[in-house]
Amino acid sequence: MTEKSTLTRDRQAAIEQELTDRVLASFDDTDDPRLKQIMRSLTTHLHDFIRDVRLTEEEWEKAIEFLTAVGHITDDKRQEFILLSDTLGASMQTIAVNNQAYEDATEATVFGPFFLEDAPRIEAGGDIAFGAVGQPAWIEGTVTDTEGTPVPNARIEVWECDDDGLYDVQYDDGRMSGRAHLFTDENGEYSFWGLTPVPYPIPHDGPVGKMLDAVGRSPVRAAHLHFMVHAEGLRTLVTHIFVEGDPQLEIGDSVFGVKNSLVKAFEQQPAGTPTPDGRDLTGIEWARCRFDIVLAPEGA
Amino acid sequence: MTEKSTLTRDRQAAIEQELTDRVLASFDDTDDPRLKQIMRSLTTHLHDFIRDVRLTEEEWEKAIEFLTAVGHITDDKRQEFILLSDTLGASMQTIAVNNQAYEDATEATVFGPFFLEDAPRIEAGGDIAFGAVGQPAWIEGTVTDTEGTPVPNARIEVWECDDDGLYDVQYDDGRMSGRAHLFTDENGEYSFWGLTPVPYPIPHDGPVGKMLDAVGRSPVRAAHLHFMVHAEGLRTLVTHIFVEGDPQLEIGDSVFGVKNSLVKAFEQQPAGTPTPDGRDLTGIEWARCRFDIVLAPEGA
Repeated sequence: MTEKSTLTRDRQAAIEQELTDRVLASFDDTDDPRLKQIMRSLTTHLHDFIRDVRLTEEEWEKAIEFLTAVGHITDDKRQEFILLSDTLGASMQTIAVNNQAYEDATEATVFGPFFLEDAPRIEAGGDIAFGAVGQPAWIEGTVTDTEGTPVPNARIEVWECDDDGLYDVQYDDGRMSGRAHLFTDENGEYSFWGLTPVPYPIPHDGPVGKMLDAVGRSPVRAAHLHFMVHAEGLRTLVTHIFVEGDPQLEIGDSVFGVKNSLVKAFEQQPAGTPTPDGRDLTGIEWARCRFDIVLAPEGA
Repeated sequence: MTEKSTLTRDRQAAIEQELTDRVLASFDDTDDPRLKQIMRSLTTHLHDFIRDVRLTEEEWEKAIEFLTAVGHITDDKRQEFILLSDTLGASMQTIAVNNQAYEDATEATVFGPFFLEDAPRIEAGGDIAFGAVGQPAWIEGTVTDTEGTPVPNARIEVWECDDDGLYDVQYDDGRMSGRAHLFTDENGEYSFWGLTPVPYPIPHDGPVGKMLDAVGRSPVRAAHLHFMVHAEGLRTLVTHIFVEGDPQLEIGDSVFGVKNSLVKAFEQQPAGTPTPDGRDLTGIEWARCRFDIVLAPEGA
């Protein structure tokens, strides 16, 4: 029986491989070579997954039901497929692949769904809050290239949630707050007043939330402030800074956006500490944070 | 620069692997060991796919849009995720994994979306058409186990499309036709009148159809007749028979259901040829086909 079993096993493996090969061959007539490459790789990995775990027919049905639910909750305002990609680390891996490590260039992280094109412009030292409530945080730094040369006139977009963990686009009233853009000065320096970031959960009342629950994971993102930095001739940087000491850094960021190099000290300043620009914050504790940004060359 | 480039490449690979490892570790607290295994394998293959093809951010966005469209066209009557699974060979691979090759047992193939529980019962030699139009085909055979012992009283479900490539469930009038169930006799033999199968396209007016178009593939399924065979103590068999000489067998079945062992001769009988059961088909060409079914032991 052992010999027979081995024969059966070998024959079974051959049958499975022959099927995969047949599907791969079905893409032979694809005109677009890149599409062909993608479909072949996708097929290979999909079949290997099914074969590796010996996926049961019942599990396959559950997967179909899960994807259907992800599709049905998705609309103009809710993108559950992006949440799924985020929580499986697929979004972050795509970022990693497309923003290759380059010398000491600042690392990239996920873009997220909360960016808006037309955020207001502020001057150096301006406030991005526009009514968003939270602890004031003075953020400053320089933008340089990887040779250390300051980059003047770099466009910096910043956006973040308020103290309740909500972005302006999650408010009902359509106002824009907690976001702005500004430019570096002739020495490549920038500064602005933001809010000390707080952790918040990704939407978790749908199928992705159920999945996180089933695997014992938190839907909470580590506290962060978004940056996007454009400068001519340099690679656009999409990143966050995280907050040193945030307990969620230990628990784990639900979308795997954290990189150690992006965790920054938000130094707490007791109420009454003079502010860098003379802003009157009498009776309010505030924070300050330095974030020096290094941009890789374009095409790096 | 070459040494630097290599360093960069190694560091890049380490960054990507560290991310994958971090996502894998996020499943450490999963209570259900099977779910943990599935999520880890899925993550590994998903990340490997992204890394292998160096998926661009634009391609990632297109993938999100594609899945969203698949979700939005899916409703109670249309299941585009199943079509997607079918056309990537994932459904068939799941069938292959769960219906392992066993000695000379008849091979399984896809179940498809057109089975109904309550098809009418017919006696030996009965007609499953119930008004479905097509060329009459006499189908006969035996059901045995892998030792060659006939299996009496095996329940055989059969279903197929009409000459227009439509199943009854695709008609608007709710009638049931082109399907029935019957039982083998005391010698394990069965026979019935069906229709000679014809090729038909899977629904291809949605995102899956667009995908097939982009890769130069036909949405057409090779002509087939569905069987499901139940018998006590034996493994339930879900399969089709295909039609020798069907040109679609060369072009390729759009869901990869064909196995050579399942391709059967539908021998054309000139009008006037006497029928096996004396049925009067004066002036009509008909076909006959033999399909002997071998069932694996339960749990094989």
